[in-house]
Amino acid sequence: MTICIVGLGLIGGSISLALKANEPSIKVIGVDKSKINTTIAVELGIADEIMELIEAVKAADITILAVPVDIILRLLPQVLSELPEGAILTDMGSTKELICQSVENHPKRKRFVAGHPMAGTEWSGPEAAFKELMPGKQMILCDVEKSDPEAVETIEKIFRDQIDMRISYMNSVEHDRHIAYVSHLSHISSFALSTTVLEKEKDEESIFKMASSGFSSTVRLAKSSPQMWAPIFTQNLNNVSEALGAYIEQLIAFKKILDDRNEAASTQLMEKANEIRRVLHEIDNKK
Amino acid sequence: MTICIVGLGLIGGSISLALKANEPSIKVIGVDKSKINTTIAVELGIADEIMELIEAVKAADITILAVPVDIILRLLPQVLSELPEGAILTDMGSTKELICQSVENHPKRKRFVAGHPMAGTEWSGPEAAFKELMPGKQMILCDVEKSDPEAVETIEKIFRDQIDMRISYMNSVEHDRHIAYVSHLSHISSFALSTTVLEKEKDEESIFKMASSGFSSTVRLAKSSPQMWAPIFTQNLNNVSEALGAYIEQLIAFKKILDDRNEAASTQLMEKANEIRRVLHEIDNKK
Repeated sequence: MTICIVGLGLIGGSISLALKANEPSIKVIGVDKSKINTTIAVELGIADEIMELIEAVKAADITILAVPVDIILRLLPQVLSELPEGAILTDMGSTKELICQSVENHPKRKRFVAGHPMAGTEWSGPEAAFKELMPGKQMILCDVEKSDPEAVETIEKIFRDQIDMRISYMNSVEHDRHIAYVSHLSHISSFALSTTVLEKEKDEESIFKMASSGFSSTVRLAKSSPQMWAPIFTQNLNNVSEALGAYIEQLIAFKKILDDRNEAASTQLMEKANEIRRVLHEIDNKK
Repeated sequence: MTICIVGLGLIGGSISLALKANEPSIKVIGVDKSKINTTIAVELGIADEIMELIEAVKAADITILAVPVDIILRLLPQVLSELPEGAILTDMGSTKELICQSVENHPKRKRFVAGHPMAGTEWSGPEAAFKELMPGKQMILCDVEKSDPEAVETIEKIFRDQIDMRISYMNSVEHDRHIAYVSHLSHISSFALSTTVLEKEKDEESIFKMASSGFSSTVRLAKSSPQMWAPIFTQNLNNVSEALGAYIEQLIAFKKILDDRNEAASTQLMEKANEIRRVLHEIDNKK
């Protein structure tokens, strides 16, 4: 089988490494506008060969778009048009509604399967890829009723049987609504925490002295790529704005409770927050 | 040497385990109002013996207060009064200004050394204690010019030479100002992220499906003990309120940039946030 991976970064690279670890006979054609990325990807065994986009798509059984979501939106209709007979196209974007809409009426819509792997780190580029990133994680497939059942099945086989991911299904509109709370908001809270602390602690000396693992953990996502995240926030703006608004309201309410020295209310709020233990326990157990 | 540890939870327990691992001849007398905690602490080898507070203080060379900061504030003057000739008292509280103020004019002030270890986890109780928590971490000693040099030196020896911590020094007022940004704010951001997501995602099904390591990391501190944190926020209210206000302002500014679909500005804000990489790199290297 020949797979074309467009975008040889953390996600595309980790998928390739996991596939090849499981089945060394798979051939991966890499596409990336960065010459540095393609060179590193070949060195690291992520790509067997580098081609131009359309040439690569035409040579592959399956094409995976693993680029930032603004690039996915731009490439998707074009790549779908060039897709050879019987081939399948999928994407790994963190937003799904606009991406699915962009090919809603495309004559080859049924050959596209929209995907979103619930896996990542704060790092990017092919050097950040590792074969253990995807296995055990969720792969959400969206609007599968709009794809050929055979195309969905092939994509499921790749991610479930070959990479050992757990497949789940979701409507693309619902996906974007939930992911705003569960992923996009975490990133914003972390980016803003970083800028707040950096603005206040200009000499950085006291951050070095006083930051412990708690701070590192909360601010970790602030290391994430702006080029990847800016278009995600734009594409999911309504949901992200609503989630961020709700978060700001929670913080304002918390601040009022603290300013009122109402320890009973602040304890109650934190006890409610503690309920996330149950959820995280399940998540950690899944890994 | 006999050490009295008041509060046999995560911090007190981890200090005892680290001390005993280094020097098995040290005798630890444990004090805890919870009968369950004292029983577990003896079982786990955290305490060799359990006594009532004043009895224990009178029998020890060094007493370490490792209880929530409201209890420290209540016990400190009383314990200092009962401290035997030549003995030393220290505390491990996350706030320092009010604690130091409470014994400012105490006749035995010089026998007290104010401390704050930059170490913790989101768990509490003696079962959460482990001997590796403290080694390699910072121990901040505050207002040491108000303590006997010999008392400071003994405390330094315990934490630096026996537990392998890095000692640094800070004014108690400065400590509280910085720690509000670098630690207390992280906890608030995490507690509020948890309540925001739990309120929105009532059925929890989509959190289970969609939460990845990024969400876990950002929301981890929301598992922390409300009984420990409520009095910390109250004791450090002015600084915490200022830090939280600054954070809310950053989030409101971020929201406006997103709502305006100003991707250049959001990219710039995230690039600025990325600068935390340098700081975290240093912190991770210290561990």
